[in-house]
Amino acid sequence: MSVVPLLEDDQLCDAAKAVFDDIRKTRGTDFVNNFWRALAHDPVLLKRTWESVKEVMAPGALDPLVKEMIYVAVSATNNCEYCIRSHTAAARAKGMDDAMLMELLAVVGMANETNRLANGLQVPIDAAFLPD
Amino acid sequence: MSVVPLLEDDQLCDAAKAVFDDIRKTRGTDFVNNFWRALAHDPVLLKRTWESVKEVMAPGALDPLVKEMIYVAVSATNNCEYCIRSHTAAARAKGMDDAMLMELLAVVGMANETNRLANGLQVPIDAAFLPD
Amino acid sequence: MSVVPLLEDDQLCDAAKAVFDDIRKTRGTDFVNNFWRALAHDPVLLKRTWESVKEVMAPGALDPLVKEMIYVAVSATNNCEYCIRSHTAAARAKGMDDAMLMELLAVVGMANETNRLANGLQVPIDAAFLPD
Amino acid sequence: MSVVPLLEDDQLCDAAKAVFDDIRKTRGTDFVNNFWRALAHDPVLLKRTWESVKEVMAPGALDPLVKEMIYVAVSATNNCEYCIRSHTAAARAKGMDDAMLMELLAVVGMANETNRLANGLQVPIDAAFLPD
Amino acid sequence: MSVVPLLEDDQLCDAAKAVFDDIRKTRGTDFVNNFWRALAHDPVLLKRTWESVKEVMAPGALDPLVKEMIYVAVSATNNCEYCIRSHTAAARAKGMDDAMLMELLAVVGMANETNRLANGLQVPIDAAFLPD
Amino acid sequence: MSVVPLLEDDQLCDAAKAVFDDIRKTRGTDFVNNFWRALAHDPVLLKRTWESVKEVMAPGALDPLVKEMIYVAVSATNNCEYCIRSHTAAARAKGMDDAMLMELLAVVGMANETNRLANGLQVPIDAAFLPD
Repeated sequence: MSVVPLLEDDQLCDAAKAVFDDIRKTRGTDFVNNFWRALAHDPVLLKRTWESVKEVMAPGALDPLVKEMIYVAVSATNNCEYCIRSHTAAARAKGMDDAMLMELLAVVGMANETNRLANGLQVPIDAAFLPD
Repeated sequence: MSVVPLLEDDQLCDAAKAVFDDIRKTRGTDFVNNFWRALAHDPVLLKRTWESVKEVMAPGALDPLVKEMIYVAVSATNNCEYCIRSHTAAARAKGMDDAMLMELLAVVGMANETNRLANGLQVPIDAAFLPD
Repeated sequence: MSVVPLLEDDQLCDAAKAVFDDIRKTRGTDFVNNFWRALAHDPVLLKRTWESVKEVMAPGALDPLVKEMIYVAVSATNNCEYCIRSHTAAARAKGMDDAMLMELLAVVGMANETNRLANGLQVPIDAAFLPD
Repeated sequence: MSVVPLLEDDQLCDAAKAVFDDIRKTRGTDFVNNFWRALAHDPVLLKRTWESVKEVMAPGALDPLVKEMIYVAVSATNNCEYCIRSHTAAARAKGMDDAMLMELLAVVGMANETNRLANGLQVPIDAAFLPD
Repeated sequence: MSVVPLLEDDQLCDAAKAVFDDIRKTRGTDFVNNFWRALAHDPVLLKRTWESVKEVMAPGALDPLVKEMIYVAVSATNNCEYCIRSHTAAARAKGMDDAMLMELLAVVGMANETNRLANGLQVPIDAAFLPD
Repeated sequence: MSVVPLLEDDQLCDAAKAVFDDIRKTRGTDFVNNFWRALAHDPVLLKRTWESVKEVMAPGALDPLVKEMIYVAVSATNNCEYCIRSHTAAARAKGMDDAMLMELLAVVGMANETNRLANGLQVPIDAAFLPD
């Protein structure tokens, strides 16, 4: 049970309806997941978040599948179950197979480990790693 | 100043020296960065960490550059300056340009934002995101 | 199921009972929530935590509702479901409506995003932001 | 030294210049802080981040000072020094005095403490805290 | 439901089977918990993780019970429910009673609190705390 | 430079002076570190934090050295440099040598790694780990 009720299509204000229309059109599916149904209580937040996600996750200098895997890496680090589930599903839909998923998580685990070794030892940064 | 002194080459025990040799051989450079010089106080930890990192970051189902970018994503989320600096440098050495870096950070920022929106609203997971 | 059993009123030692009495008197309700029933296994921890929370959340330089919203902001950032649920309920009881909740979470999301952009880019602090 | 060079005004592309103009106009000052000078390498990211921050931090259901204090609370929890410094300065400029700052941090500290007590004990959520 | 199916004994490849044999032999029990059954999808990750955990948690300069309590401390800080549950059980099996658990969590809570006070105030490090 | 000035002994109000006296008496040294000099701006926060830390870190069901190591584990996980430095120094003063420190950090690193593997895979909790 979410903190605010999830809005059904017939409960949306016009501004939220317009965002849902764009989600459906952009994704080519009628399905709108719960995240947006919770955000729909604040159409300004809904619109900004959707447009930001759409812009950030579009093809660019990085491939959309790589972007989804980065999303999973952050979500696993923060332990956001909703985001782990939804972005793992999205990455699979874009071609991530089990071997790729397991390697992704192996990197995430290793980074989380060495982050703490570097923190705990307060290792000074090598000059070689700084920009010229 | 690190919590334990950084060991110079002539201060290494034999076990640590063997790891440094492998780092140099694997990377094709004489340079060994401070992280390993701090870990060298515990040759068991040094060896396990190096061999794990070498295994995890090798080419596999994912490209080494993608792995470096995932490392940066986790390190930026955790704010480990040492790891941000060293893995950003490593990713650049493998081909990441400024446009790719900025897009990578854009995804990291967006994931950190929506992670908290999903947390704060306690959005229930859609059945569509669960494995069959 | 919590890691230690939740204690019922008739299972409390005298020291824990005294804390529960103060919780009830301070809040003007007979209801004592599960958090305190778990802490009651360690009456020293229970007493210190309750007295600290009571002191911190009392009216002072900041309004109690603002304090509850700050509590929600931290709990959403850390993804502590128990604390998100209990402090969102407490903030609502003190007057937070849906519009305020959604704006609160919008700020929390944005701060989590820009925290990582600043981390990932290692932006140096402007002199203007430092105390004189 | 940031990961990418901070751009001076005469190094900005037209799209970035337009954002800087809006920052100056909105804030009524010629000063543009380093965060935006780093983001200026990616004018799309710069524009989206600025417009999002401007929208989120504007007066609404919550007071701008309350929003700045929530920003500080998140940044202190995540330990983003840049954001702690810049948003503490912003909150002071909007009226936060030392007493308010110390109380704010007291709440942040307490929330971070009880978040971990609730986590470690895995306290089940009381029915009273769930929406009807 | 985990993101990948948990593998039963008769679904393991030979490499994974060898790791499960070592888990059973090392722990002196036939029980292999779900964590390893999920990792078994990637026998390289499974083997490295198991051998690392076995090495790290063995008696050494620190007592195995102390190590388990440190594991719980980290897991409670990160709010990883699986690790809180499994390592609290492991610590109990090695002799941690309720009084020790409650004190452990009290320290974890206090550290999380003062970490944020130090962050929020950006307290400079005393020379006395730096190595000579 | 801290966010609020560090108070010298002759700048303390009477309530803060009384806390500093107790710090000196309890620790048997005239040295009072910067953390308390920053908190001294809010004598109520100073007193509560000092008395809480004194109570939590006293000998009890756990040894004070074990408690200091747990403090370091949490601080390294959160990357609070001030707390890493001060509690590593405190643990050393109570008997932690380099071998113990390196093993402590090895456990912290491993826990941070497996926390994310368990998160990313959303491993369900084994019944064996739940209380009866």
